[in-house]
Amino acid sequence: MPPTSRYPDAPTLADSVRLDDDGVHILDRRVFPFEHRWICARTVEDVARAIEDMVTQSSGPYFAVLWGMVLAARQARHLPPEKAREQLRHAADRLIATRPTNDQPRKAVTWVLNAVDHHPDDVLAAAEQGALAGERDYRQRSQELGKTAAQLLPDRACVLTHCWGDLYLTGMVEQALQAGKQLSFICTETRPYLQGARLTAETLAEMGVPTTLVSDGMPAALMQDGRIDMLVTASDRVTMDGHVINKVGTLQLAVAAHTFGIPYYALCHAPDPHSATGSDVPIEYRDGNDVLHTLGHRTASDRVTGLYPAFDVTSPQFVTRIATDRGAWKPEHVHQYWAQQ
Amino acid sequence: MPPTSRYPDAPTLADSVRLDDDGVHILDRRVFPFEHRWICARTVEDVARAIEDMVTQSSGPYFAVLWGMVLAARQARHLPPEKAREQLRHAADRLIATRPTNDQPRKAVTWVLNAVDHHPDDVLAAAEQGALAGERDYRQRSQELGKTAAQLLPDRACVLTHCWGDLYLTGMVEQALQAGKQLSFICTETRPYLQGARLTAETLAEMGVPTTLVSDGMPAALMQDGRIDMLVTASDRVTMDGHVINKVGTLQLAVAAHTFGIPYYALCHAPDPHSATGSDVPIEYRDGNDVLHTLGHRTASDRVTGLYPAFDVTSPQFVTRIATDRGAWKPEHVHQYWAQQ
Repeated sequence: MPPTSRYPDAPTLADSVRLDDDGVHILDRRVFPFEHRWICARTVEDVARAIEDMVTQSSGPYFAVLWGMVLAARQARHLPPEKAREQLRHAADRLIATRPTNDQPRKAVTWVLNAVDHHPDDVLAAAEQGALAGERDYRQRSQELGKTAAQLLPDRACVLTHCWGDLYLTGMVEQALQAGKQLSFICTETRPYLQGARLTAETLAEMGVPTTLVSDGMPAALMQDGRIDMLVTASDRVTMDGHVINKVGTLQLAVAAHTFGIPYYALCHAPDPHSATGSDVPIEYRDGNDVLHTLGHRTASDRVTGLYPAFDVTSPQFVTRIATDRGAWKPEHVHQYWAQQ
Repeated sequence: MPPTSRYPDAPTLADSVRLDDDGVHILDRRVFPFEHRWICARTVEDVARAIEDMVTQSSGPYFAVLWGMVLAARQARHLPPEKAREQLRHAADRLIATRPTNDQPRKAVTWVLNAVDHHPDDVLAAAEQGALAGERDYRQRSQELGKTAAQLLPDRACVLTHCWGDLYLTGMVEQALQAGKQLSFICTETRPYLQGARLTAETLAEMGVPTTLVSDGMPAALMQDGRIDMLVTASDRVTMDGHVINKVGTLQLAVAAHTFGIPYYALCHAPDPHSATGSDVPIEYRDGNDVLHTLGHRTASDRVTGLYPAFDVTSPQFVTRIATDRGAWKPEHVHQYWAQQ
């Protein structure tokens, strides 16, 4: 059993990674919402594998890495400071290596390592404080980003979204609802893992927002028919020149939106100062067999090979605004985010 | 058991509707290739329901309607000619009403009704001859169309296709292979029924063509990476001004192809002289629940509504050539097909 949520009013997925004495409890998103199954990751390696195996995804790995670093600190607490720091660095490397495209594991370990560097005498207390600060920061910035994004949505907007935008999306929806706006969503199912059909659809229902599900090929037809007001997605990374890296399928929707004159708003806390442009971001290829199956059932001919690029890169020309925790930017100006210190 | 195929060298799906003494035997495409299950439609109503229920689709309904009309003629054979003709017209109306967007059931009944009008004294013999002529015509025109389309493909082309192009696609592949061209395919799985993952992938494998499966949102990313040479799809109807009506998802791919400078070739025997433009073609909406399920399994949240427009309309600006049985046309010229009598 996972520990009690500290956010009882939040949707289920908004608090789906929790630390307890026995390890990091992670809600298994591969079977949600059909089952509410939690796994307990007792070691850093368990956490890393849970991320690699998609037990959690989107914002989930950020939290899993924060608490995974606390598990590492528990292990290292009785070592001399230098040894402890070395072990934490080792854990950090393992956790960062889990997913190459999304940069959040790196940000999460940085919170913990910096805290430990400031208080090397008590590794565990420092790691816990660093992780908590990292969690607070992420949640607060998601709310700020949500406020920015909500301002872009007119009342009664019909929003198309793809995959699962996690706290960025729930932040936006919360802020829009608080501002008294009525929204409806169309979400793509997002094959092969069906994050849209399962995670987005369920969470928007939890939030009381009317939602219609379509398959991944349908949005352009609905755009052409005037049924969609804007496309909004989260992003796994935004580069300094305004390329948006997100779940594969985003590019195709952004291109369609551009063609039919529909704005595309991408959500991120901040552009990545270490990624100048799209080609600087490694694209993760996952097992092609995933395309041949649907939730564990074989759904393709036995005689075909699958291919699964997990992310794609949308160039700035197809992006209308990038909503950050410091306002919304035209993609070509998003680098100015960092000038605004 | 279905009667023996008259086309033993053809891929399985190229002869998947066969007439026998006890009725029309139809290969169930809903479970192919996992099962080779045939259903026997003993009456016109059985045939109509098999089409409505997607037991067969793409070119399948054309053949099912031809043979369904023969079943009607068997029933009507002992009636006075005028009564018999009335019963056949009644059967024709039922069969045409099965699918509103694709016009092939209408063409199929026309073959049989015209034959009966020419030989009203022997309704059954006339219907059989009309149906056989309709079959020959369809197969021959698909080969002609295939020849046209194959000429558009350079050697070693990597072709993206969507849904299942049936005899149009197999005609093209056959002709390309006969011309000594090597092809490879990328096919979309085509949710919700997965025609690409099942029918296209299996049939291209039967034909010895290397095929890679992707989910419906991935093609734009592959186009951007230079991995696709052209998009080729069948069409359910082409209008006189060059709009292509085809399986939903086609528009989204055509828009992406246009954006990334990749040609889109649509296949059809001929433009429909009764459809001046896209808005003249009714778009079939199928049960939205289909989007919430995958091959019978629930794959979406219980709290969401599905929407399933089964076809979309691609305007001429996104179409490079329309390959017909009388050559390839720019979409704005395709109406000239009918001037070439």
